[in-house]
Amino acid sequence: MKEALAGELVGNGHRLWQRVYYEDTDFSGVVYHARYLHFLERGRTDYLRCLGINQGALADGQEGREGLAFVVYHMDIAFRAAARMDDILEIATEPERMTGVRLVLNQKITCNDRQLIVAKVTVATVDRQGRLVRMPKDTAQLFGL
Amino acid sequence: MKEALAGELVGNGHRLWQRVYYEDTDFSGVVYHARYLHFLERGRTDYLRCLGINQGALADGQEGREGLAFVVYHMDIAFRAAARMDDILEIATEPERMTGVRLVLNQKITCNDRQLIVAKVTVATVDRQGRLVRMPKDTAQLFGL
Amino acid sequence: MKEALAGELVGNGHRLWQRVYYEDTDFSGVVYHARYLHFLERGRTDYLRCLGINQGALADGQEGREGLAFVVYHMDIAFRAAARMDDILEIATEPERMTGVRLVLNQKITCNDRQLIVAKVTVATVDRQGRLVRMPKDTAQLFGL
Amino acid sequence: MKEALAGELVGNGHRLWQRVYYEDTDFSGVVYHARYLHFLERGRTDYLRCLGINQGALADGQEGREGLAFVVYHMDIAFRAAARMDDILEIATEPERMTGVRLVLNQKITCNDRQLIVAKVTVATVDRQGRLVRMPKDTAQLFGL
Repeated sequence: MKEALAGELVGNGHRLWQRVYYEDTDFSGVVYHARYLHFLERGRTDYLRCLGINQGALADGQEGREGLAFVVYHMDIAFRAAARMDDILEIATEPERMTGVRLVLNQKITCNDRQLIVAKVTVATVDRQGRLVRMPKDTAQLFGL
Repeated sequence: MKEALAGELVGNGHRLWQRVYYEDTDFSGVVYHARYLHFLERGRTDYLRCLGINQGALADGQEGREGLAFVVYHMDIAFRAAARMDDILEIATEPERMTGVRLVLNQKITCNDRQLIVAKVTVATVDRQGRLVRMPKDTAQLFGL
Repeated sequence: MKEALAGELVGNGHRLWQRVYYEDTDFSGVVYHARYLHFLERGRTDYLRCLGINQGALADGQEGREGLAFVVYHMDIAFRAAARMDDILEIATEPERMTGVRLVLNQKITCNDRQLIVAKVTVATVDRQGRLVRMPKDTAQLFGL
Repeated sequence: MKEALAGELVGNGHRLWQRVYYEDTDFSGVVYHARYLHFLERGRTDYLRCLGINQGALADGQEGREGLAFVVYHMDIAFRAAARMDDILEIATEPERMTGVRLVLNQKITCNDRQLIVAKVTVATVDRQGRLVRMPKDTAQLFGL
């Protein structure tokens, strides 16, 4: 069962399934809007994990490299419909393009084939001082862009 | 002290000050990106509160009106710099325009005059079934647009 | 993969596996203490789900019954060790006893057989007005106490 | 207004006022149980702040000292009543005793004089490797025990 936790690579992207729990909802009865960003982030993290990129290790630095982290630089996010308690969400992540120090990803959250969230997320890599740095070439190549 | 909790109306908008606590940060050492949406939402809620709009009462329905809620419809959000534990954030909210059932707000988060977050947030009003409905005229007029 | 999301019934209890993501950590480098309560709640929710109790439906009321909800009434929680980004946690839930309107559960969170959290959680059932009510007999019997 | 953010020292303890926002509630209509631990933690953090203890600086290490952090070691928490959207909570924190490496605090959350939460929280100080260490004497003395 543990193996299923990281979702799976599909086509040139990734799919992850996550459950909506109490913690994700608010008193309006549906999922709190900022929680979708958590689901999107879990999708990106597990996409990187399935590509062989361990963000914990990346942050620590490894094999003589300086520690670096992915940070969210910009998001455009449309909230099309709302999820509810107990729903199972499918989080789809696909790389769109790499531009210098930035990687643009398209992400969607669906529930039973109904689109809930459509997002364009730009991430960048920064060093421990928070300065933008170019992604290591071997890491960048993993996205197949 | 309680009075200070809702921030204050400034010009045609609102300012709110909020502290960064442990809960807002992540292991990278700075504030988790989705947490800024919480700070923005607190700013919008207290802006509405200072205008005399109580979202809890609005959701329950009042004076023979049907219950309705503000929902986030779209966000464009630039993450320019990161806040850290103990920082005090200023959340600025200003209405830009009203278009049919939607209200567009400009929001900024700054810390010691450094811009951290610049966001354009489109909210809409929905009824209890989640259907878009026009904002009541007396509520809409409060934004001075 | 979706099937694995709810964990599994084991002995007279339940096991659930969950990943630690960015959102769960704080700037100290490990999981924020209150997040373990989220993991415990996911464990209880999926234990109930595997027993055939759907909390969303229970809250709505069904088959002519009044809506009711499980609420946490008391927790005793020992934080023995800390989890980190990327860890996979095992959340174990076992019923201990039923006393009138209350159900006492023992819950543990482990990571690679290391105990992180040991908790005794008392839950109660309440009606829509938040008043304590006795659990329906057919629901109570599912815990095998 | 910023000055009011840290609450105030009262008697031998501390009081902090915090608003309930959307993010704190869940679909049951009231505050999600784990969120009360966030409010308690904000209370402890601002109690320390008012005593002159800056946890951010403490974690970094200062004046030749090793970095150290307060961690929650044990909690006993009774959930007596529930808060709702828009409520203003009073978080009271009082030190009870210091035992070796541990500090026991009594914390209460009330809303309009109604007790919501009664908690006994044991915190400990750990070094960067997460090992229990004795609290520096000048820090320990600040609690007046």
